[in-house]
Amino acid sequence: MTAPYRDRLSRAAQAAADAGIDALLVAPGADLRYLVGYDALPLERLTCLVVPATGNPFLVVPGLEQHAAEVSGATDHVSLSTHGETDDAFQLLAEQLNDALGRTPRSVGVADRMWAQQVLRFRDVLGGAEQCLAGDVLRPLRLRKLPDEISSLRAAGSAIDRVHAQMGEWLRPGRTEAEVARDIADAILAEGHASVNFTIVGSGPNGASPHHHVSNRVIEAGDPVVIDIGGTMPDGYCSDCTRTYVAGDKAPGDFAAYYDVLLAAQLAAVAHVRPGVTAHSVDAAARDVIDNGGYGDLFIHRTGHGIGLEEHEEPWIVAGSEVVLEPGMCFSIEPGIYASGKHGARIEDIVVVTDDGVERLDTIDRDLVVLAG
Amino acid sequence: MTAPYRDRLSRAAQAAADAGIDALLVAPGADLRYLVGYDALPLERLTCLVVPATGNPFLVVPGLEQHAAEVSGATDHVSLSTHGETDDAFQLLAEQLNDALGRTPRSVGVADRMWAQQVLRFRDVLGGAEQCLAGDVLRPLRLRKLPDEISSLRAAGSAIDRVHAQMGEWLRPGRTEAEVARDIADAILAEGHASVNFTIVGSGPNGASPHHHVSNRVIEAGDPVVIDIGGTMPDGYCSDCTRTYVAGDKAPGDFAAYYDVLLAAQLAAVAHVRPGVTAHSVDAAARDVIDNGGYGDLFIHRTGHGIGLEEHEEPWIVAGSEVVLEPGMCFSIEPGIYASGKHGARIEDIVVVTDDGVERLDTIDRDLVVLAG
Repeated sequence: MTAPYRDRLSRAAQAAADAGIDALLVAPGADLRYLVGYDALPLERLTCLVVPATGNPFLVVPGLEQHAAEVSGATDHVSLSTHGETDDAFQLLAEQLNDALGRTPRSVGVADRMWAQQVLRFRDVLGGAEQCLAGDVLRPLRLRKLPDEISSLRAAGSAIDRVHAQMGEWLRPGRTEAEVARDIADAILAEGHASVNFTIVGSGPNGASPHHHVSNRVIEAGDPVVIDIGGTMPDGYCSDCTRTYVAGDKAPGDFAAYYDVLLAAQLAAVAHVRPGVTAHSVDAAARDVIDNGGYGDLFIHRTGHGIGLEEHEEPWIVAGSEVVLEPGMCFSIEPGIYASGKHGARIEDIVVVTDDGVERLDTIDRDLVVLAG
Repeated sequence: MTAPYRDRLSRAAQAAADAGIDALLVAPGADLRYLVGYDALPLERLTCLVVPATGNPFLVVPGLEQHAAEVSGATDHVSLSTHGETDDAFQLLAEQLNDALGRTPRSVGVADRMWAQQVLRFRDVLGGAEQCLAGDVLRPLRLRKLPDEISSLRAAGSAIDRVHAQMGEWLRPGRTEAEVARDIADAILAEGHASVNFTIVGSGPNGASPHHHVSNRVIEAGDPVVIDIGGTMPDGYCSDCTRTYVAGDKAPGDFAAYYDVLLAAQLAAVAHVRPGVTAHSVDAAARDVIDNGGYGDLFIHRTGHGIGLEEHEEPWIVAGSEVVLEPGMCFSIEPGIYASGKHGARIEDIVVVTDDGVERLDTIDRDLVVLAG
């Protein structure tokens, strides 16, 4: 894979120019990593990539981070300025930006997740420049993954699938959710991720809460258990895959009934994905099956979220979204059914829109797996 | 410990009123945890605590987070409103705020680390309300820790000290930095932390980079190794302690010479801490010793940072800071000397300003420890 950063930087500058924005101000986070490959620490000291609509981009970092910025390779593509512990980094950046533009900026795009303390400082030091979101310009670029990014996401999907494939070794009655989560976390790293992002183990009634994490609850024989796990690979791309298991005994009858409805809904939503359909319609494809199965009230969240350098990014697969799917868009399909106080189930795969349909990046079995006790 | 949140909320509202701010808008993060005890997830969906200068505070969360908000205990102190997947949460919040104030707000304080995408949406939906930083109001409250917070930080310090006390079991020549870091991470959790924040293992030349994390470098006999580690306790308070060890053989002569200077500098800075002196003067107390020892050019960062519900918060112990120390302020004292390309050393304790001096919250031995090979 050749470094794609020069191309991304020039497309970002062009998109800013097209939007009438004088410069993009990109704080540490996924946008910065996307544009120059630098996985910068979010510090109270200012780190900021400046992408002027015309002229050369430059990266401002604290002196302490110079080495990290250089080894990231970012400085192969952009010039670097550093500031010391007692410098006014915002003022220095403003002066450099004025020099680059040959005037003060009239509008700047700030990164979507830049901290308010930086947003307001830039408001002050950049005089009358109107602030908008850099994401409005960068999102269309990041939304459509190029082949190298899809390869990265495919590798992430395979890695997390290999973790699920080992679940029978850890998920047993008599163990706590936290013990199982610890084993999963070790395996997420062992299978090639650089970091563990989350390890949700929702057993029995805890499975009925979509955002339950882990607890010290002891898993009982016959408990349905929702396992939703993900990590970040060394190149920054994320995995995210959910399967629901039954631990050590056959599933309760009321659970088995709705699991089949859920599986049908997940398959229907994935089958619906192709270029030209709306995100809304993908959500509806899952929701209709669950509604028709009589469980509509128990599917209490959207069907999915985009994924890439962030676990959750656009597009949102949600009712009302008019976003039209295009080749290269990657997102989760993860309907769930939650029987409050009893148990729940969720099935999640990452998919990518292809030229004429869809590819699943998680391919492990989706049928209900009852693990030996 | 009785829940201190009602008191904190009323002091925050009073401080906002004193500053002429109509309401504080507090996003997920340390400010939110400080005010209502809710360790909320930072999601793209809006979670925001609203503290009007007069009237009742209220918490806005996505419907999916209602359960988490309730079990956090936050709803014992503030009313809750939820929004659905397709609601405009910002508009709903604006309407509630207008109702609470009986008019539109003229100024609001946004949390220091609120994301730009939320800052700019609030700018739009709150009409002409001027935005300032909520931190300007909340920082003075969080800066002076009350006795219950100091107890929490003392417990965190003891926990991380217990990890350092076991270093001889893991830090040996022939192992990689990453292997040692893994053992440290396990111990950080085993000693009572809820999460691991960082495990810096900088051996030999890697110790000369203050922000080096870990690598696959194999530790050699006689390597100085900088170990800077910290975690977050279940109640949210953080630990952070650095010791420098020599692995398996006696230290190189040039290292031993500057280690003694560093230790003297650290002791001098701690001894200087008391109410009424400036943060600048604490930094200078360390820096003077290192300058006089002939290593001034190799001490390339500030002396310390505040700590509490965040690993890094105010006050900054840095040249030029006119912040005057007051009882209850907690921060690190962590001078370092970095011999580029060879090795480095750093010694760090968390201290708290008492009524008449200073208390160290990390008390483990600071003399150079040479570990058996």
